[in-house]
Amino acid sequence: MRQRFKPWAKEKLIENPKYVSVEPEKMKGKWHAFFGNDNPIHIEVGTGKGQFINGMGKQNPNINYLGMELYDSIIITALDRILEDEKPNVKLIRADASHLLDYFEPGEIERVYLNFSDPWPKSKHAKRRLTHESFLKRYETVLKKPGEIHFKTDNQGLFEYSLHSMSTYGMFFNLVSLDLHKSDMEDNIMTEYEKKFSEKGFRIYRMEAQFRS
Amino acid sequence: MRQRFKPWAKEKLIENPKYVSVEPEKMKGKWHAFFGNDNPIHIEVGTGKGQFINGMGKQNPNINYLGMELYDSIIITALDRILEDEKPNVKLIRADASHLLDYFEPGEIERVYLNFSDPWPKSKHAKRRLTHESFLKRYETVLKKPGEIHFKTDNQGLFEYSLHSMSTYGMFFNLVSLDLHKSDMEDNIMTEYEKKFSEKGFRIYRMEAQFRS
Repeated sequence: MRQRFKPWAKEKLIENPKYVSVEPEKMKGKWHAFFGNDNPIHIEVGTGKGQFINGMGKQNPNINYLGMELYDSIIITALDRILEDEKPNVKLIRADASHLLDYFEPGEIERVYLNFSDPWPKSKHAKRRLTHESFLKRYETVLKKPGEIHFKTDNQGLFEYSLHSMSTYGMFFNLVSLDLHKSDMEDNIMTEYEKKFSEKGFRIYRMEAQFRS
Repeated sequence: MRQRFKPWAKEKLIENPKYVSVEPEKMKGKWHAFFGNDNPIHIEVGTGKGQFINGMGKQNPNINYLGMELYDSIIITALDRILEDEKPNVKLIRADASHLLDYFEPGEIERVYLNFSDPWPKSKHAKRRLTHESFLKRYETVLKKPGEIHFKTDNQGLFEYSLHSMSTYGMFFNLVSLDLHKSDMEDNIMTEYEKKFSEKGFRIYRMEAQFRS
């Protein structure tokens, strides 16, 4: 729906193949070549306007960041941000997280970031939550062992669900913060959403979860 | 220290062997006989003044509740509460959680409750926290499979630590509530501490954790 408002977006994405992959199936097994080095690749699933990966890319030049987003009209803002301040280690993938296995070879990725993912609060939509078992299985497959998921949200229900879902799957939590902005936040890169909601006094929940190898 | 104020407490405990065991080593393997039936036994480690087990005992007549507490001067209040309104399924054990294996045979217990346990906030005291690995190992031994721990606290740091410690140990969370009093609380029995702190607006955190069999 949102794409309707930016009909030029798709064209602009195609014009910037150095920074955006719009046919990620063709890149399977070739992502290190896309970045031009063998540094670890971290993906953010649902990268939105790209503030997080841009900040992370600046902070950690030896990590490759790949922001995954489904909507042309949103990813275009992330692209603009990359073009403003070109960094060789921040790139985008216009793709759907449900098809992760079509995009990556097993072990091609070293970390998954989930930031402020859609909570899908109704039980009948639980399967769509990005921490549902079916997604965890996909992350586990594409992640190099021991794979980590770093997850932030302001949504209490989604965080509770994720603690259940991930631990039941067999993951464990190296770190949990139930009020990130009142704890030691070393090098925390805020998303736009995070800035807005934490300023309003909402708690931000964060975890670092790891698959059991 | 606190015992100093109630020198008569020990004597009163000894005078009520029907409700309190002050020599729990001698009861090892005989707890069902203590209750006079084969119903499941749930223990609360750190039972304090006994409000929780008394409430639970009334709510669930087919479960045997055993409240464990180290201090004479505190457990005496729990005893008074039991004597006021005698219930055959609520009893006390004056004992130290560190010596759990001396008191129970493997599989003798079906659930462990931890309510508002001492947070021991300093890292150097982590070993004293009742959700430290060394305690989890003891609970796992005395619990019948699949053993559950139900844990409530208002202490954010202890809850974060416990999510880490328990998941790392291999446990998983069937249920997590990050704000118990604003969620559906079916049959929640409040401790005195819980009532006081939730009324002041503090969040109560709760989880139901299970060992992986």
